[in-house]
Amino acid sequence: MNNQNSAINVDLALIHYPVWNKNKQVIGSAVTNLDIHDIARAGLTFGVNNFYIVTPYEDQQQMVQELMDHWLIGPGGEYNKKRKEALAIIRLCSDLATLYSDVTAQHQQKPTVLATCAQHHPQQVWSYNEIRLRINNGEHFLVLFGTAWGLTAEVIKKVDGLLPPIMGNSNYNHLSVRSAAAIVLDRLLSA
Amino acid sequence: MNNQNSAINVDLALIHYPVWNKNKQVIGSAVTNLDIHDIARAGLTFGVNNFYIVTPYEDQQQMVQELMDHWLIGPGGEYNKKRKEALAIIRLCSDLATLYSDVTAQHQQKPTVLATCAQHHPQQVWSYNEIRLRINNGEHFLVLFGTAWGLTAEVIKKVDGLLPPIMGNSNYNHLSVRSAAAIVLDRLLSA
Repeated sequence: MNNQNSAINVDLALIHYPVWNKNKQVIGSAVTNLDIHDIARAGLTFGVNNFYIVTPYEDQQQMVQELMDHWLIGPGGEYNKKRKEALAIIRLCSDLATLYSDVTAQHQQKPTVLATCAQHHPQQVWSYNEIRLRINNGEHFLVLFGTAWGLTAEVIKKVDGLLPPIMGNSNYNHLSVRSAAAIVLDRLLSA
Repeated sequence: MNNQNSAINVDLALIHYPVWNKNKQVIGSAVTNLDIHDIARAGLTFGVNNFYIVTPYEDQQQMVQELMDHWLIGPGGEYNKKRKEALAIIRLCSDLATLYSDVTAQHQQKPTVLATCAQHHPQQVWSYNEIRLRINNGEHFLVLFGTAWGLTAEVIKKVDGLLPPIMGNSNYNHLSVRSAAAIVLDRLLSA
């Protein structure tokens, strides 16, 4: 409804398992309420199709569903219609395999899967400008964001390419996933 | 310590009063924990000097102080040293007049005050590229971000200039202040 450029085919996914903790152990992280709101709002602003919340834990899935119900069919949407519009792009998903098959089924072809990472990896890296051009040429992308201390090496190895780490005027690069997602969307999809 | 470019002189301020609610009534908003963390982390990443939390309410000031104490001198900093570094750029401030005098005193000259707003205003607007150049030329900026439904018209009237609203590929522009701050910092200060 809000998407002014129907040629754009970008989906986002926020991964809660498998991710790293600060000791590089593989964990499943808890869903954070404001991740859902912030990335859905930024996603709708920048015209993405769907924002997938990926978690294998049933209690976490139930929490996300209750939050969505509050805003999409409950009193939240009456209180703030703009928030209702944003949360309407959210989809729930249990794992990466289901994510890939759902996104592929919806578009009837496999998307190009990109990952974002605060570290450098010895792997295909595409610049923001290159991906921006490819989006404008109609290519369908699925962009993965990791929670906690980021996507595991196993996940990163299997994606089609990486976006470069976001660097500022310092040697500190510990953005929240909410901030990183906002910046990535702005770099790829700003007007 | 992390700032690799000592020519950069940018301060941020998150304003909790006076701001608008959704009916354009002037209110004071409550401090949100994740605003503090996210904007401090993004601020340090992009090399800003100070991040001022502006609220007139003593209970809110006390809450921010307790949060800072937890991370700066309490157990938080042991658990996550990177978070301690980010929160060290935070300053507490009671109102806009004090903010302006504090920032002016610290630099021994008045900063150029910029505001960010999701709407267009009939006022001086500078492009992100122009401000980026002026930052690199050593000009000192103080960038204001409003909480709730944004800075009031009275505040906006008195600043030196505005940054353009952030627009994506849609007619929806309801970013969280956390997302907006991350994007503004990236546009002005990315490496």
